[in-house]
Amino acid sequence: MPTKAYAAKSPATPLAPFTIERRKPGERDVAIDILFCGVCHSDLHTVRSEWAGTLYPCVPGHEIIGRVTSVGSAVKNFKTGEIVGVGCMVGSCRSCFSCDDGLEQYCEHGFTGTYNGNAFGGKENTYGGYSADITVDEHFVLKISHTEKDLAGTAPLLCAGITTWSPLRHWNAGPGKKVGIVGLGGLGHMGVKLAVALGAEVTVFTTSPGKVADAKALGAQHVVVSKDAAQMKAVANTFDFILNTVSAPHDLDPFVAALTRDGTMCMVGVPSSPHPSPTVAQLIFRRKQIAGSLIGGIKETQEMLDFCAEKGITSDIEMIKMQDIEPAYARMLKSDVKYRFVIDMASLKG
Amino acid sequence: MPTKAYAAKSPATPLAPFTIERRKPGERDVAIDILFCGVCHSDLHTVRSEWAGTLYPCVPGHEIIGRVTSVGSAVKNFKTGEIVGVGCMVGSCRSCFSCDDGLEQYCEHGFTGTYNGNAFGGKENTYGGYSADITVDEHFVLKISHTEKDLAGTAPLLCAGITTWSPLRHWNAGPGKKVGIVGLGGLGHMGVKLAVALGAEVTVFTTSPGKVADAKALGAQHVVVSKDAAQMKAVANTFDFILNTVSAPHDLDPFVAALTRDGTMCMVGVPSSPHPSPTVAQLIFRRKQIAGSLIGGIKETQEMLDFCAEKGITSDIEMIKMQDIEPAYARMLKSDVKYRFVIDMASLKG
Repeated sequence: MPTKAYAAKSPATPLAPFTIERRKPGERDVAIDILFCGVCHSDLHTVRSEWAGTLYPCVPGHEIIGRVTSVGSAVKNFKTGEIVGVGCMVGSCRSCFSCDDGLEQYCEHGFTGTYNGNAFGGKENTYGGYSADITVDEHFVLKISHTEKDLAGTAPLLCAGITTWSPLRHWNAGPGKKVGIVGLGGLGHMGVKLAVALGAEVTVFTTSPGKVADAKALGAQHVVVSKDAAQMKAVANTFDFILNTVSAPHDLDPFVAALTRDGTMCMVGVPSSPHPSPTVAQLIFRRKQIAGSLIGGIKETQEMLDFCAEKGITSDIEMIKMQDIEPAYARMLKSDVKYRFVIDMASLKG
Repeated sequence: MPTKAYAAKSPATPLAPFTIERRKPGERDVAIDILFCGVCHSDLHTVRSEWAGTLYPCVPGHEIIGRVTSVGSAVKNFKTGEIVGVGCMVGSCRSCFSCDDGLEQYCEHGFTGTYNGNAFGGKENTYGGYSADITVDEHFVLKISHTEKDLAGTAPLLCAGITTWSPLRHWNAGPGKKVGIVGLGGLGHMGVKLAVALGAEVTVFTTSPGKVADAKALGAQHVVVSKDAAQMKAVANTFDFILNTVSAPHDLDPFVAALTRDGTMCMVGVPSSPHPSPTVAQLIFRRKQIAGSLIGGIKETQEMLDFCAEKGITSDIEMIKMQDIEPAYARMLKSDVKYRFVIDMASLKG
């Protein structure tokens, strides 16, 4: 089944029109006409092979919203015509302890990425959401109950949303908890919205005094300019949980200092070169922790989507045409987007 | 009340006989005739001012076993003639949330160290267990129910024991859990004994193939030579908890790699210079954590002592005279002790 898409043929090649083959839907598959696809930093890292292991041609995109066009004979939970989502994963072993726990992102055998194939280095390629349609096993398809007008802003929930939701829930962000969000980009702005909606007292850490108003507009109760030592000192030993969304190498110590006893800072960005080594004594003297977290499982993704639909939460987005992806990447590299680009896939099909 | 002790008068001065003044016991104080005092690496770091903030004269020693010689009028839990212990702390604020939780070691206002005064930089000095007697508020005195012959080996439980017990308990080492212990010195050998007694499946990580037999003699079920990449690869993603007792700077990544999903590696040693920066991607890809832990609270120290008395657990020790402390330090620096020196305090009093 030939499908219109945008692909990069090498790390140095811009994304350009390309025809891919989608499989004929099997009995457990859901065929989806893609309406919107969010633009994630991972897309850019992968097409330009900034991480190891990009398979070419590369069709990125893992924040997918679409409409079901057909379902296989064994599909139980979806019907033709429904609005659905697809996130970062389209497969996993389904039998290891992490899959059994509903945490397919930590599959012992490596999940299959929505694009670029197996997350742990398999050779079979998969093609993502910068395309007209996609066919996915129903286990990895999400129900979307947002209203029609919110669908474009729902797309980034499938990666930016779940990547922040999963650690916020795992470390019990909620009423009575002081939560910090480091960075105010695509991930950070979702972290703020979700942590606030979960009932936590939320502080944004930003290097830019210019983002104070933005952070408050998103719902944060407090903003700390992290370059200001006096402001950082004033919040020392106070946070139950800090979600650090900044992948650029930076000094982790001031944020660890801001944790209270038994507090955790969770990293969700992979730096291109190591952060300075965190000071172990700071971990020891108040039993603090540095952790990491990767996207989220299918079950918790559905919970997040349902929560967001109920609360009317979406990503703040700027809509683009498929043809404008390269300029969008250039702006994303300058953090010149509030807060996520979403591709209107009608532009590809027209 | 003049008391015989051994003190260092400067970072470059060897420990030598010195007379200190102990306070007259107050109404909540327990006066203790010291029988044994363990020799901890912290003693050496502090007398030689290898950490910032040593107050001189410095009388180290915080693994104290002694006999009660008198108690104040308000003391409820101790009587003259009883055998008791004193560990790393002799005071804390007693009113912050950590003190309320029985975790005085994390006191928001800084606990008072048994020697070298306030842990967070106060100026008032305290004198430790390299002395004939000590007077301590009963809150910081521990009951000892080991048999008479085990008393010398009980001394190191007050620091090496509780420093390993507290994280093992906090991270639920026990039946069904795979626990790794990195390093086989004073702390590590106690970690092995305690983790085994708690019912965990215990693996010792050591750089020395020569320590395999020692580790097994202590009760470890498995030993991994951590310099052997093939052995490390064979245990990748398998440990629920790793207690890392090595303070020398070293690469943390191979040990993080050995953790299973949601596993934690807890550091209990402060390196003199930073470890290489741990790889964040490893934390992210299986939601792993690096944490720290500091000694333990009074309540959990008592629990550990009672557990050890019931199970007949002591430290493996080598007894020395007070006069032989400097040669003992020299041997400790070469890791030439199995596994802890303990000073027979009769040698000071004779």
